[in-house]
Amino acid sequence: MPNIVLIGAGSACFSLDLIRDIVNTDGLAGSTLALVDIDPQRLQVAHTLAIRLCAETGGRLELVAVTDRREALVGADFVISAVKIGGYGPLEEERKIAEEAGYYRGIGDRVSCYYGGIGAYHQFRFLMGLARDMEELCPEAWLIQTANPVFDGTNLITRQTNLKTVGVCHGHFAFCHVADTLGLDPEDTDTQMAGFNHYIFLTQFRYQGKDAYPLIDRWIENESAALWRDGDYVEEMSPGAIDAYRLYGLFPIGDATRCATPWWHHISFEEKKRWYGNDGGFDSEIRWAEYLDRKPKVQENLARLAGEPGASLLEEFPLKRHSEQHIQIIDAMANDHEMHLQLNVPNRGAIEGIPDDVLVEIPVVVNGRGIQNVPVGRLPPLIVNNVLLPRLARMENLHDAFLRGDRRPLLLSLMDDPRTRTFEQARDLIDTILAQPWNKEADEHYRMKEHSA
Amino acid sequence: MPNIVLIGAGSACFSLDLIRDIVNTDGLAGSTLALVDIDPQRLQVAHTLAIRLCAETGGRLELVAVTDRREALVGADFVISAVKIGGYGPLEEERKIAEEAGYYRGIGDRVSCYYGGIGAYHQFRFLMGLARDMEELCPEAWLIQTANPVFDGTNLITRQTNLKTVGVCHGHFAFCHVADTLGLDPEDTDTQMAGFNHYIFLTQFRYQGKDAYPLIDRWIENESAALWRDGDYVEEMSPGAIDAYRLYGLFPIGDATRCATPWWHHISFEEKKRWYGNDGGFDSEIRWAEYLDRKPKVQENLARLAGEPGASLLEEFPLKRHSEQHIQIIDAMANDHEMHLQLNVPNRGAIEGIPDDVLVEIPVVVNGRGIQNVPVGRLPPLIVNNVLLPRLARMENLHDAFLRGDRRPLLLSLMDDPRTRTFEQARDLIDTILAQPWNKEADEHYRMKEHSA
Repeated sequence: MPNIVLIGAGSACFSLDLIRDIVNTDGLAGSTLALVDIDPQRLQVAHTLAIRLCAETGGRLELVAVTDRREALVGADFVISAVKIGGYGPLEEERKIAEEAGYYRGIGDRVSCYYGGIGAYHQFRFLMGLARDMEELCPEAWLIQTANPVFDGTNLITRQTNLKTVGVCHGHFAFCHVADTLGLDPEDTDTQMAGFNHYIFLTQFRYQGKDAYPLIDRWIENESAALWRDGDYVEEMSPGAIDAYRLYGLFPIGDATRCATPWWHHISFEEKKRWYGNDGGFDSEIRWAEYLDRKPKVQENLARLAGEPGASLLEEFPLKRHSEQHIQIIDAMANDHEMHLQLNVPNRGAIEGIPDDVLVEIPVVVNGRGIQNVPVGRLPPLIVNNVLLPRLARMENLHDAFLRGDRRPLLLSLMDDPRTRTFEQARDLIDTILAQPWNKEADEHYRMKEHSA
Repeated sequence: MPNIVLIGAGSACFSLDLIRDIVNTDGLAGSTLALVDIDPQRLQVAHTLAIRLCAETGGRLELVAVTDRREALVGADFVISAVKIGGYGPLEEERKIAEEAGYYRGIGDRVSCYYGGIGAYHQFRFLMGLARDMEELCPEAWLIQTANPVFDGTNLITRQTNLKTVGVCHGHFAFCHVADTLGLDPEDTDTQMAGFNHYIFLTQFRYQGKDAYPLIDRWIENESAALWRDGDYVEEMSPGAIDAYRLYGLFPIGDATRCATPWWHHISFEEKKRWYGNDGGFDSEIRWAEYLDRKPKVQENLARLAGEPGASLLEEFPLKRHSEQHIQIIDAMANDHEMHLQLNVPNRGAIEGIPDDVLVEIPVVVNGRGIQNVPVGRLPPLIVNNVLLPRLARMENLHDAFLRGDRRPLLLSLMDDPRTRTFEQARDLIDTILAQPWNKEADEHYRMKEHSA
């Protein structure tokens, strides 16, 4: 049975989700799951709850908990990476500094939190370290990479190592909001979504064997106004999502509603409200603050449960269908149990016009032979040229800056931000952020400066 | 002997340059040159002077002059396209309209004149028409395409037709200003330049067998300040060119000094002065106005000469070495006289990371077998990601807009302009420019609007 390692297991909520998925998967009974976290207290909570969840559900899972990942990697078959280095505190500080310099909600990739700090330095450094350890200790294992930025971080690994690597995100499940709003059962729809992670579009949408895009058009014409009247709706069917569909020609799905929508929707809270509803959408100061507020409360609640051996976990965490794809990938590969999933893999021709080595989020077939890309073909040039190519250039700049220790690519990406008015504004902001105490190592890493060619 | 057709021969100055080049080329004695222009008066001037130049130099050239290009294309071996549809008047009007909307020096590609009007519509339409005529009347002929925009226009033809096509520009000759300033004889240097047309960089620079980039660095350190003190210098060695070199890692050459330098150098006349000298460089309101002013004067002077059969042309146009590459291409191909030139051709792997079908300006070998690309290898990621990829996206938008009759790609490119503050600003500007009388056909062509998906 497969030997699974979860790096970043201290997020007890995510760990329990995965364990439920394993317990729900007959073919994985008897697997080993090593929980790894550098924080022994959080790890202890997750381990305790994991043991309890297995006991309550009768799940057969060998559980191990270690703080040293190298210990767990020996003999690993699958390594799930779900780490956010440094937590959200530094990110929120960087966001404040950027707001003072004129960048509402900070710099980075629309939902600036995803970068894990300027240049994604901390996440990149962690991922490269993990990958080097895997090359040494379990070179045949799969790396199931779910830590943000999935696009930039996973692609760094697929480009820089020979590890078998796949990126996983749950953003595409948000299609259900589109189906719900249209009054369709998602099970009766036949969909294809493609693009980059957080930048996916509905490339095919069929209902009962027929093209269902006209159902969206009809909804816009006849029903959208009523839904939008009081400003209270899901982002997935907001004026912003519809505007992006009109502008680019395909419907954005999930995180694309935030990331792949035009910059002028996101230039101020007033604009965000206009396009994404009263609360401005998930990455506004309102919703994002709620999200950050909720995180420690969930963790506290789980820590409390861990301290009450009598409390039933199943009451709080009912067994439900798979919420994530990580365990499905493992089941498909380990048991040759073929599945059709939506994953992030090197393009290798799946989307025309995108280089072969660029990570794309597309439909794939997973089985005992690994992952086979489903060809998507050509995306509308409007999307390729105005959404994907600019996003690709930003990733290339992040990689280039990291690999050569040069802050010029970060600076040039920021010069390309529509809020940037002067060179000095961008240069000083990058220097200021890199001068923060948590970025000391990054500041030294990005040693080549703009005028040192 | 080859049958050469020059489309746009009414520009007598360019026609005489080409004729001198032919007369200077022994292997092309006895060729036929058909001068084509839709303006019979300008054509008459060029024809008269062409006959006189041949007589004075003893050049053996069969000269024909026709206003209908289809007549000339039958039996053509080489077709040189040097046409600017509509002249500069409408462009200058469009520039004024754009300046009123907040875009100093207009929209388009830095030197906005090159686009031949919004979306490059008029130039694209002319080029596609010419190409369709060639496919019918001389499908084996080479199209030597020198009309701007060379990058976007020539690439449209190489992508949309099977014609043998090459793009020609003289911008790279400006390297001589770099050599001059450094006190080097260009003949002793070994250089390679590569990129897109108007976006080329010095990828190799050797002097007497050694890397000569350190000579540039030494010049910057020791001599630039003295040259720059009074603000009077060639753009090629201006603070702007040096800043681009420091920022991107390679030296920009020729038109790249304007087009491939950072946007913040070009945001106002004050900035242009700071970076490119007292007159703001070639595309400033001062120098560009001088250029536009000079054009009709040169033409008038030639018309005057055409009316004075006794005047010597050679006094005004001394025979000098080749000033353009057009005739060298023809000589190399027709006579298998191998030459190393700098031309614009589909990439086919010459520059790593650029798609095969994108037109690149690179060193090539031209001979009886046609054009062979010289592999350039990898350009610095700083240049690929921050100069070439964004330029490529703009070309793709121009092509997409033209091929599908959709103004959204034009709008999205303009939304990407750092001067654009709101969606309405860009949308209204495009609509206003397309509403001008000379754009009536274009307005109908780009029928799909931003909210009509």
